[in-house]
Amino acid sequence: MKTEKLRIIPLGGLGEVGKNMMVYQYGKEMMIVDVGLMFPFNNMLGVDYIIPDFQYLMDKGDQIKGIVITHGHEDHIGAITHIVEHFNVPIYATPLTRGLIEVKLARANKLENVELITIRAGERAQIGPFQVDFFHMCHSIPDAVGLGIQTPAGLLVHSGDYKFDQTPVDGWTADFAKLAEFSKRGVLALLADSTNADHAGWTPSEAVVDSALERVFAEAPGRIIVASFASLVSRMQQVANATMKHGKKLAFAGTSMVDNSKMAMTLDYLDVPEKNLITVEQANRMPEKQVVIMCTGSQGEVTSIMGRLARGTNRQFDIKPKDTIVISSHPIPGNEESYYYTINALIRRGANVIYDPIESVHVSGHANQEDMKLLINLVKPKYLIPVHGELRLLTQHARLAESMGIPHENIPVVENGQVIEFYNKKMKLAERVPGGYVFVDGTGVGDVSMPVMREREQLSQDGIVIIDLLLYQNKNELRKPPQIETFGFISLSESEGLMEPLVEIIENIVKSNRENLKSSIEKATKSHFFSETHRRPWVRVVINEV
Amino acid sequence: MKTEKLRIIPLGGLGEVGKNMMVYQYGKEMMIVDVGLMFPFNNMLGVDYIIPDFQYLMDKGDQIKGIVITHGHEDHIGAITHIVEHFNVPIYATPLTRGLIEVKLARANKLENVELITIRAGERAQIGPFQVDFFHMCHSIPDAVGLGIQTPAGLLVHSGDYKFDQTPVDGWTADFAKLAEFSKRGVLALLADSTNADHAGWTPSEAVVDSALERVFAEAPGRIIVASFASLVSRMQQVANATMKHGKKLAFAGTSMVDNSKMAMTLDYLDVPEKNLITVEQANRMPEKQVVIMCTGSQGEVTSIMGRLARGTNRQFDIKPKDTIVISSHPIPGNEESYYYTINALIRRGANVIYDPIESVHVSGHANQEDMKLLINLVKPKYLIPVHGELRLLTQHARLAESMGIPHENIPVVENGQVIEFYNKKMKLAERVPGGYVFVDGTGVGDVSMPVMREREQLSQDGIVIIDLLLYQNKNELRKPPQIETFGFISLSESEGLMEPLVEIIENIVKSNRENLKSSIEKATKSHFFSETHRRPWVRVVINEV
Repeated sequence: MKTEKLRIIPLGGLGEVGKNMMVYQYGKEMMIVDVGLMFPFNNMLGVDYIIPDFQYLMDKGDQIKGIVITHGHEDHIGAITHIVEHFNVPIYATPLTRGLIEVKLARANKLENVELITIRAGERAQIGPFQVDFFHMCHSIPDAVGLGIQTPAGLLVHSGDYKFDQTPVDGWTADFAKLAEFSKRGVLALLADSTNADHAGWTPSEAVVDSALERVFAEAPGRIIVASFASLVSRMQQVANATMKHGKKLAFAGTSMVDNSKMAMTLDYLDVPEKNLITVEQANRMPEKQVVIMCTGSQGEVTSIMGRLARGTNRQFDIKPKDTIVISSHPIPGNEESYYYTINALIRRGANVIYDPIESVHVSGHANQEDMKLLINLVKPKYLIPVHGELRLLTQHARLAESMGIPHENIPVVENGQVIEFYNKKMKLAERVPGGYVFVDGTGVGDVSMPVMREREQLSQDGIVIIDLLLYQNKNELRKPPQIETFGFISLSESEGLMEPLVEIIENIVKSNRENLKSSIEKATKSHFFSETHRRPWVRVVINEV
Repeated sequence: MKTEKLRIIPLGGLGEVGKNMMVYQYGKEMMIVDVGLMFPFNNMLGVDYIIPDFQYLMDKGDQIKGIVITHGHEDHIGAITHIVEHFNVPIYATPLTRGLIEVKLARANKLENVELITIRAGERAQIGPFQVDFFHMCHSIPDAVGLGIQTPAGLLVHSGDYKFDQTPVDGWTADFAKLAEFSKRGVLALLADSTNADHAGWTPSEAVVDSALERVFAEAPGRIIVASFASLVSRMQQVANATMKHGKKLAFAGTSMVDNSKMAMTLDYLDVPEKNLITVEQANRMPEKQVVIMCTGSQGEVTSIMGRLARGTNRQFDIKPKDTIVISSHPIPGNEESYYYTINALIRRGANVIYDPIESVHVSGHANQEDMKLLINLVKPKYLIPVHGELRLLTQHARLAESMGIPHENIPVVENGQVIEFYNKKMKLAERVPGGYVFVDGTGVGDVSMPVMREREQLSQDGIVIIDLLLYQNKNELRKPPQIETFGFISLSESEGLMEPLVEIIENIVKSNRENLKSSIEKATKSHFFSETHRRPWVRVVINEV
């Protein structure tokens, strides 16, 4: 049998935070692992979210044998609604992950005709030429898996997002035995999570959060409101446990939090006896000290419950002075301002706000350096491919692996779009394929390009000025005075002294010069504004001649 | 003698990061402490920087007896060029701080007619009714001071930015004796730095940076390029010391870094023998291993040297593969994206980039919780007023002080504009005065208001569409087809299917309805765009009739 090339095609998550998407190819056949989204940078104006650029796959639909999802976080499943529009292939996931995918697809009216295949950690699936072992890993969501991918060209281990939690909330530790077994089989390459590569030591266990919640619940004089991600099912369990221990009652609030908690209870990933659950309406009628509310908005999103509470615009309930608010998440990189704005605003409304580092009410779900070292030593790969993280973190992960004895040349540090090939167990960097950003804005996917983004940036800096001119045909004469309108440029009250001389400038240009009138006026206007204000608004001259 | 009210008027720095400005008033007379700037939030589009709103002082110029500057960082001196335009009063500062103020005023052509008074730590000045003791405090810049402000109503202690560094770069520890002396006199109120109120333990000494630099300098295979703030004079000294120890030569690069280093050497705050200094031109001709360059741009500012190196647009030198780059600063809150973008880009260009936490090449200059506790115990104030920091940090500082025995009601947690009054040693919260943001954009100060900012935000989200219509006078008839132009809304290649139906919509409105034509068309256009794209561009219709 002829040996084929094994290709690893990173379409997302390498050199960035989020939108993880990896393609494995042997011969012609392909398997996709994860299809996440990422949140836009602050300078990606008006963008709702970003999905991977999978144009490389668009004419290869029949080569794709399956999509595997390692766990249910947005940066791993968030682009699923877009993917299923283009590729009709089976999606493999563990029960909870499948549940989260179903909730998402159903909400987008795209669940029909999607083939979802449940596979449990410890089980094996054959996906095209890939024999895939799903093995349990600990992360900040239950039912996360890594993958052992046996190919004719060798065994790959794909860690997924993980940390080695020795006391996880659900008691289910990582499948060390399976990792050891891989090392016995001989691992060609390990693709491992680099998110925390610059964090020394071990990542703390989720159990740390239990102790912190215990202190908070013991001291809270009134209601306790806990904000977290809607997909953080294990945090829901921790809050439920603390609620029950302290004889309080728990309400979930926010559509996605309610949907996900229901689904997780149905699938037995979340265990809260019916008698301990209340609705927000019931909570509003109960003594405050008995009430715990768990809701969305830990990042301060304007439209989330916590975002609305901070702004005093939440419909069902408001902040009261004795409330204790627990922000059970860290800020997503780039979102620090919104996160802290929300905390400050909640304090201003009288709440006592608890967040890390005030108390350890959140810990990272990703491997720190010692976890990373353990994984490498368990798996003993020939090649290490750092994945998940900005270039600086991939680099740091590589440095770590090199210090452990993996040769420098066996650790490719690459970013999205750089194909890695293995042939006869030897690695080489192959061609680059598109691996950039696809912006989703409203219902548009990819119709906001980088030039449009730069236009938005220009508008955002100094606003615009529109000048409306009506001329007599073929005469150097205005039919009406120039009409000047500004938006985002300068306060109306300050603009008079700026506009009067401009009218004169425009009138003089009209009188003197009919060649390139529009561009002459635009140029003169810009120059006038710059010399007067040192700003560069976008200037548009509309000329009509009759 | 009649006793007057003592008033503390916070115009900046309370409830935010930066633009520190405090006014002390006894009777009619006032003294200003610090006049800083702050950097805009990511959603303050197009703003260059923000200065305190001092309109409350505008008609009180003759009541102001002096301005005291505690140290030379931008968040304490950055608004000085704006202040001297309005108030002609003496400015008191220590020699290095005065030097930095002079550099700044000279660059803005505003040094003339400004009365600068040099005062050394340990000295005393009478400023109106305020007898001010300047005492030395450690911070990440030399020659920083705190203030003991003796008023007829009691003694105030103003900490300034500080940490208790037991091994500072210049060997000059905090003036513990003076702090103890204040406690003997009896301190009415302590106004203390809250920047790191959520950081447990002690702030590490600047000496930590020496060890980190030592490791970096020992291992660097080629040039070493250190980026920091231009005002971080003690960091310059540390880099110079490492340079000399390793037999290398040091070049300063970047106008403000060069200006400040020259000034600091002239004033003997920076000690680098002439023979160890080179120019960048000389550096370019020397063996790489001998070269150290210290430059600006540790925050990744686009126009700084480091920002240009990251983008490959620096004029004097480029990144080479063996370069070691040390980023000797932490990201300013809100600037994380630009900071890490720059680090990633430098790595992509082949450099080895060292930053905290890879090595401790920067430590905070602000007090952590244990430093804060020590200050409180040294000074033993009756009242504690947390200053410098977001509300969450003022709150945490208050919690800390309360845990040490200061009564809750003696710890006012207030934000900018909330006047605090003392009368007969009793505190009360008085009126609120303006204490918000004044945006500086180009040469304009305050002419970009919040409504203008919201317009910019709207433009930045979905761009604009301009529709130019020319009609026959008093006829429902277009003289030419509607002209539609977009900017920042949608890629041109994607817009055709959207614009063709719009032309028809517009033509139908023109035919059918002459009432409120402009607003009818704007409304219909917005509605068309929203239903097709779920976006809301700013729509402007220009109508001419002839």
